Amino acid sequence: MTIDYQLIIEELKPIKIIQEAEKIKQLSLDYYYFSPILEKQLGEKKADLVVIPNTEEDVLKVAQICVKYKIPLTVRGAGTGNYGQCIPLNGGIVLDMSEMKKIKWIKSGVACVEAGIKISVLEKETKKHGWELRMIPSTYKIATLGGFFGGGSGGIGSINYGQLKDRGNLYRVKVITLEDEPKIIELKGDETRQINHAYGTNGIITELEIPLAPSYNWLDVIVTFPDFIKALKFGQELADSDGIVKKLVSIQAKSIVKYFSSLKPYFEKEQDCALLSVDENSLFSLQELVKQYDGEIIYQQNLSNINHVNLIEFTWNHTTFHARNIDPTITYLQTFFFTIEKVEQMYKYFGDEVMMHIEFLRVAGKAIPAGLQLVKFSTEERLNEIIKYHEDNGAFIANPHTYILEDGGRKSIEPEQLNFKKKVDPYGLMNQGKMRSWK
Amino acid sequence: MTIDYQLIIEELKPIKIIQEAEKIKQLSLDYYYFSPILEKQLGEKKADLVVIPNTEEDVLKVAQICVKYKIPLTVRGAGTGNYGQCIPLNGGIVLDMSEMKKIKWIKSGVACVEAGIKISVLEKETKKHGWELRMIPSTYKIATLGGFFGGGSGGIGSINYGQLKDRGNLYRVKVITLEDEPKIIELKGDETRQINHAYGTNGIITELEIPLAPSYNWLDVIVTFPDFIKALKFGQELADSDGIVKKLVSIQAKSIVKYFSSLKPYFEKEQDCALLSVDENSLFSLQELVKQYDGEIIYQQNLSNINHVNLIEFTWNHTTFHARNIDPTITYLQTFFFTIEKVEQMYKYFGDEVMMHIEFLRVAGKAIPAGLQLVKFSTEERLNEIIKYHEDNGAFIANPHTYILEDGGRKSIEPEQLNFKKKVDPYGLMNQGKMRSWK
Repeated sequence: MTIDYQLIIEELKPIKIIQEAEKIKQLSLDYYYFSPILEKQLGEKKADLVVIPNTEEDVLKVAQICVKYKIPLTVRGAGTGNYGQCIPLNGGIVLDMSEMKKIKWIKSGVACVEAGIKISVLEKETKKHGWELRMIPSTYKIATLGGFFGGGSGGIGSINYGQLKDRGNLYRVKVITLEDEPKIIELKGDETRQINHAYGTNGIITELEIPLAPSYNWLDVIVTFPDFIKALKFGQELADSDGIVKKLVSIQAKSIVKYFSSLKPYFEKEQDCALLSVDENSLFSLQELVKQYDGEIIYQQNLSNINHVNLIEFTWNHTTFHARNIDPTITYLQTFFFTIEKVEQMYKYFGDEVMMHIEFLRVAGKAIPAGLQLVKFSTEERLNEIIKYHEDNGAFIANPHTYILEDGGRKSIEPEQLNFKKKVDPYGLMNQGKMRSWK
Repeated sequence: MTIDYQLIIEELKPIKIIQEAEKIKQLSLDYYYFSPILEKQLGEKKADLVVIPNTEEDVLKVAQICVKYKIPLTVRGAGTGNYGQCIPLNGGIVLDMSEMKKIKWIKSGVACVEAGIKISVLEKETKKHGWELRMIPSTYKIATLGGFFGGGSGGIGSINYGQLKDRGNLYRVKVITLEDEPKIIELKGDETRQINHAYGTNGIITELEIPLAPSYNWLDVIVTFPDFIKALKFGQELADSDGIVKKLVSIQAKSIVKYFSSLKPYFEKEQDCALLSVDENSLFSLQELVKQYDGEIIYQQNLSNINHVNLIEFTWNHTTFHARNIDPTITYLQTFFFTIEKVEQMYKYFGDEVMMHIEFLRVAGKAIPAGLQLVKFSTEERLNEIIKYHEDNGAFIANPHTYILEDGGRKSIEPEQLNFKKKVDPYGLMNQGKMRSWK
């Protein structure tokens, strides 16, 4: 059945619609091209229409029309993902949520907002109340909250609060279904796992109620070390230092420093280093820990100084972003190492072919090293060899070179999430082709 | 050389002095009698004078006089310790710090106070600024801050911030020495380890600068479980739940519940249970976790309700306090189990002879179970057998049945602390007999 988009456009009125080909192309893509594999697979994909709702009623109407005409629907935030999370494989409608950006309320420790709000905009408001987000992606300036929960997993702050999927990190969501009669439903607590990191394959998230974290006066700090292993061990001890308040522990091998153009003035030479965010009151303790590992603080800046570089934007997958700006053949891995010994083993085995970039985060109460290593891409075969070597040696790879949910970090879709999809998207219209188990 | 205390009293004037025998006896003791061993050893010990300074100058003067006449000096807070920390073994002066209680300043995340301030009084003030103490003892209503750092190790809040000795949990102290010319010195950061948990054997702490924790609306919660192992596993998972904000995870075997007189109305029957303090916003997540372990919430109360029982005062060593109120033959152990498997092993081996009471706390970034088990005392030999069995099976006992620093939790005195004592107390006047390495 061919879909008559002129008819659809009429029916959608007065909801905002994008029809210009160039704009549609742009709003159909994300940062998928960090992966040369995805670049080949997804570069040409695009929606037939982009629809930009303003209200829950708008979203409901779009849902009704998609069900009526069986139109593929792909939900999009700011498109800062890296796995083609919001790239429509089969055309149809891309639902751009960026105008659904109202803050419903903020109270002590909790915020309720529409899904399309930019994380930075929300955090600016919560900070007025003494609170901030528990975790943010390195793309927080433009990324939306709904997109973060739908397509992300953790970020700056995960060293304290774990990952988005962890119990207690999402209180409630409103979701609009694509049933014969689309409905607004609410999920609370553990129920929200049904929509977590599902790339919007199972309902349209319109509203989120999230816990907040107490706000601190964060200091950005760069520390250099005589060698990578010292930097790594320092990172683990800082992550484990219960008395030192921090929210970012990012360790970067010296081979990566050359890609940090705007940080160069602070480096005398390329050195293994840590990029950190710590409470200003913890600075003295940090200095003592730095000394213990023969480190040197080469940069420290209060975040309230708006002229400074923003260290957050050199960590997590922004590291890859900067490297690719200099050398577009660079891609990356995502790895749970679990122990620093495993990091050391891989670091020594691969040398500069896999440039070590570690982010510490909490998993079930323990601070562990996770890698977003940079890889100089040669062939797909070699990339797969590298991945296989990691897996054969006990490191868990969340493969960022696939748009299939089950082939990435998830490995399998929980039955509860699949059952939920059957209920809320019986025609399988949402983000088609991303969830293999659906077929 | 006999000390002429009439002369001392004259010289001390106008500093407040206690001379009444009954009052001196009272101010020479602490809660040492939780241990039948210490009870026998320490019950008759007392000072010759109790001196109550009001200012740093007063303390300096006392120090000068003690050095001049070589008078043994024992510093005391509220005397809520359990190892005879502030009991003078050789008479002399007890320095009661409870009138040195000024708050110097409170700023965002940091407080500076005199050592004798009651922890509850300080926390009442910090809460006005949105902050609270990182950790408090169960005796916080009367215990002093200086006493906590001098003789304690951790408490409610240690599940987040570790122990008092951990880097970052004490910013700065002022200490008055007992050199030939007593001086006021300052220790910062790691240097403060020189006075940590030293029972006041190495200088008189007069002022502390401490980090604070963000204040939450805490809920007191009691959860019952079908059996102890479920309660224990629940405790570990709650302790490891990075998304749930808590500050107390106390697990009590059902054999202990009979000692909780004022909690009885809430228990239908004696059951293995958890006594918790969680952020009110985390309640829903807690309920989900409780369900997972077949638990039942039998009590929940906001701390701002002043009529409710205070759960904190049933945990840590207050558990022992309540048990001894019912059965004075009960004493206790202090144990680092490191894993819940080790707890289970001991629980099954000893049965009701060692009633299991677990507090979860963070040690180097990991939440571990620590025991304050209740023991029905028979003989010293049997108590030592019980201790030996624990140690032989990989549990670390911080023996609370000794007043010697090295025989308790410390095992040995770090050279830096011993060297510090040589400098600040060259005549060995401070809390004589508590540090074996001194001899």
